[in-house]
Amino acid sequence: MAKTPGSLQHTPEGELRHFISIDGLDRAMLTRILDTADSFIEVGERTIKKVPLLRGRTVVNLFFEPSTRTRSTFELAAKRLSADVLNLDIGTSATSKGESLSDTLLNLRAMASDMFVIRHAASGAAHFIADAVTPDVAIINAGDGRHAHPTQAMLDMLTIRQHTGAFEGLKVAIVGDIEHSRVARSQIRALNTLGVEEVRLIAPDTLLPHKPEALGVRVFSHLEEGLRGVDVVIMLRLQRERMETALLPSEREYYKLYGLTTEKLARTAPNALVMHPGPINRGVEIESAVADGPQSVILGQVTNGIAIRMAVMSMAMSGQLAERQRESARNREGTRS
Amino acid sequence: MAKTPGSLQHTPEGELRHFISIDGLDRAMLTRILDTADSFIEVGERTIKKVPLLRGRTVVNLFFEPSTRTRSTFELAAKRLSADVLNLDIGTSATSKGESLSDTLLNLRAMASDMFVIRHAASGAAHFIADAVTPDVAIINAGDGRHAHPTQAMLDMLTIRQHTGAFEGLKVAIVGDIEHSRVARSQIRALNTLGVEEVRLIAPDTLLPHKPEALGVRVFSHLEEGLRGVDVVIMLRLQRERMETALLPSEREYYKLYGLTTEKLARTAPNALVMHPGPINRGVEIESAVADGPQSVILGQVTNGIAIRMAVMSMAMSGQLAERQRESARNREGTRS
Amino acid sequence: MAKTPGSLQHTPEGELRHFISIDGLDRAMLTRILDTADSFIEVGERTIKKVPLLRGRTVVNLFFEPSTRTRSTFELAAKRLSADVLNLDIGTSATSKGESLSDTLLNLRAMASDMFVIRHAASGAAHFIADAVTPDVAIINAGDGRHAHPTQAMLDMLTIRQHTGAFEGLKVAIVGDIEHSRVARSQIRALNTLGVEEVRLIAPDTLLPHKPEALGVRVFSHLEEGLRGVDVVIMLRLQRERMETALLPSEREYYKLYGLTTEKLARTAPNALVMHPGPINRGVEIESAVADGPQSVILGQVTNGIAIRMAVMSMAMSGQLAERQRESARNREGTRS
Repeated sequence: MAKTPGSLQHTPEGELRHFISIDGLDRAMLTRILDTADSFIEVGERTIKKVPLLRGRTVVNLFFEPSTRTRSTFELAAKRLSADVLNLDIGTSATSKGESLSDTLLNLRAMASDMFVIRHAASGAAHFIADAVTPDVAIINAGDGRHAHPTQAMLDMLTIRQHTGAFEGLKVAIVGDIEHSRVARSQIRALNTLGVEEVRLIAPDTLLPHKPEALGVRVFSHLEEGLRGVDVVIMLRLQRERMETALLPSEREYYKLYGLTTEKLARTAPNALVMHPGPINRGVEIESAVADGPQSVILGQVTNGIAIRMAVMSMAMSGQLAERQRESARNREGTRS
Repeated sequence: MAKTPGSLQHTPEGELRHFISIDGLDRAMLTRILDTADSFIEVGERTIKKVPLLRGRTVVNLFFEPSTRTRSTFELAAKRLSADVLNLDIGTSATSKGESLSDTLLNLRAMASDMFVIRHAASGAAHFIADAVTPDVAIINAGDGRHAHPTQAMLDMLTIRQHTGAFEGLKVAIVGDIEHSRVARSQIRALNTLGVEEVRLIAPDTLLPHKPEALGVRVFSHLEEGLRGVDVVIMLRLQRERMETALLPSEREYYKLYGLTTEKLARTAPNALVMHPGPINRGVEIESAVADGPQSVILGQVTNGIAIRMAVMSMAMSGQLAERQRESARNREGTRS
Repeated sequence: MAKTPGSLQHTPEGELRHFISIDGLDRAMLTRILDTADSFIEVGERTIKKVPLLRGRTVVNLFFEPSTRTRSTFELAAKRLSADVLNLDIGTSATSKGESLSDTLLNLRAMASDMFVIRHAASGAAHFIADAVTPDVAIINAGDGRHAHPTQAMLDMLTIRQHTGAFEGLKVAIVGDIEHSRVARSQIRALNTLGVEEVRLIAPDTLLPHKPEALGVRVFSHLEEGLRGVDVVIMLRLQRERMETALLPSEREYYKLYGLTTEKLARTAPNALVMHPGPINRGVEIESAVADGPQSVILGQVTNGIAIRMAVMSMAMSGQLAERQRESARNREGTRS
């Protein structure tokens, strides 16, 4: 029987063991992740940017979907934790020899790997692996299909907390292609778990998920209206492929209706934060003056991305090790009695 | 004059200096490699999976044939020995600028590289390099043409010894495409050197080498007959290309005749080991129930692969260094007298 | 306003801060680089080839043009300085998502990167980045368009000084495709700055730059004549593409006129050095007997390449850090007063 996201990601003692999705993690756990990341922010500013938390540990970056940017942030985070890192671009290797996903993973586990950072085009891939294939390897989800991209959501939460101090009372708008965005799905869940006042989705009808109300959000189809009074605006990247599939008329039309300009930004609360997961399409979903302007925290998000990844990697590794030790203690007891 | 495999791989004092093939290594040396690997098995189980034996040494993975799996095991082994690792996928780089193999290697040596791990499509490539191009760089053969894949053979020997305790009295069957397999060639030599009672080859006539008897083996063309009473069954991976060249009728036909099923496995000695170098083709050369069954040690082979690679890398490096020191001592003496 | 090459590469206190081109560096600075590299030569000969000068620092190899050879030397140099290294083959990644060069670099800087090693097809790319995009990240130019390849020039200078002791009084000939060579441009500047007696360019008219005299060189169109009495011959690699664009008749014809043979080498001063940046085209620009002969120092250049790269990386990092500390001290003072 498949485990719930909560029981899968936690040890029975409540430590983080895998990091697959925001679902199943409560406010206390999300806060612990943010606090741990805060302590790593300082590491990035040091001359010697290393902590020995994963020294001698083997982290395998398993990217079934290519993503140099995300892979690089995980690689840097792992190296700053002193891990040994193996990068595998699986799209072009083992599986091309007809080996199944499970066999590839079991082989890597047999090489004494301690952690898999996984990006996969199939929703649920990371969950499946942690649940059914290699539960004793710490699994970090680096994006699975349209399902989740939880480290991206958490680095956004860290950025918001740095600038606002708390989540209570905040109104946050997410703008763009919500339907196809694993980032948005994880952000909505994280914002609601952390207790913001209101999450708004602003998008054309064709780019909204089917039952948005079930997500605990308010929906707007006009940007000006949706932005009114918000404290944080999260712009999503527009995948150009959407144009070709007739979901959207044209880039120019999209920019006119949903692009964030200086003028439209004036509708928000004063000094609202402008965020974007990157890479940005200047002049498509965001005006350059806004992306580079004083309210933009886009580059701060990138810096926070390293700290958040260091946090979930070190916490999941520590939870896995504690659980493995308890298991072998139980096994010894079982043998003795 | 080209050196023999023995004189090439040994220093005059009998230390390992290169690891090119099982040919030329005697039983004592193979046993020393297995004993050293045993000591590294424990390293893989530690929290800090590092030993400093190759610290500050530069290991270059030179893969003229792509192989993510084999390259990864060498990379992990080198990192656990604390080496600096440079991965070069030569198929797509320097040589495409028209540089000769020798020039590429001499350039890498000039960068103060200490060890080359080489995979090459040409039989004898590793031997040629150790003999004629860069004898003072430790050469590890990671597979050359149809000739040899000695680390694969040694990890198989380690696996057999772990489970049986000794080689004396064992009957071992190798099943499948012997003719095109560098793995099989190295296995046969290693098994005979280590003193098993009998090595059997089981294959259709089209996939047998020309004079199999010269290898010190018994040949069977029926799987059921060949498996009778054996203690170890080593299945080989079937290269799908063989079908296309009319050497074999079809995958289905091959599976019927040479696929290892639960039923056929019953012919062996009780609890015979089932081995496979991976990646496995489920339902082509092996039934899933057998690959995942209690007699399968396939994932154990993978774990042992790291330990064997750590063993030959550290032994060859140590022999090279000892030899270089003796040489410079001799040179100083020569200058003085 | 764009900075001059000198003010860009130096801190106000005269330390190296970026390494973009030989232009703007004076004789004292070039000599300091050579002296520092000399101290690293010894590191390559040690058993433990590591110094901790860049420990905990993040070096990003940003190759917009592929070059396995140059990338490998920078990677090895960085690892021997104990840095964490991230290799990004940008041609195939982020920018393909439509992200601008500046945005890619600002993102990498936000990940707390300390140094970018940049190869780019556009002349001036490294200068632009150091001047206008990320001045507080140490920029090392690994080749930009036809403009400069300053680490190659400096490793050549190191090789010349090792063999001749000094630059005064030397006659140096550069032979081949000067027009398209960033290496030649950097060599000419370095040789003149270091005070050689004469720099000669030997090339067919079609492969000479437009106003060679402005470079402080003598021009020869006949190899035999140009080689007369020189102390150093630097051969350039002939890009085979030149043939196709009708700048040259044929490889055979080129070899006859400009290929360095034993016979032609006899025209130089006795024991003149033969140099080549590699990879060499045997039988196109150089005879094998010359490339492998007693006057060739081609492989020594490769060894020196690691030492020079360690030198400029450690010097630029150190200058950057000193400058950043002075800046934050100034900022603190500014706040206080």
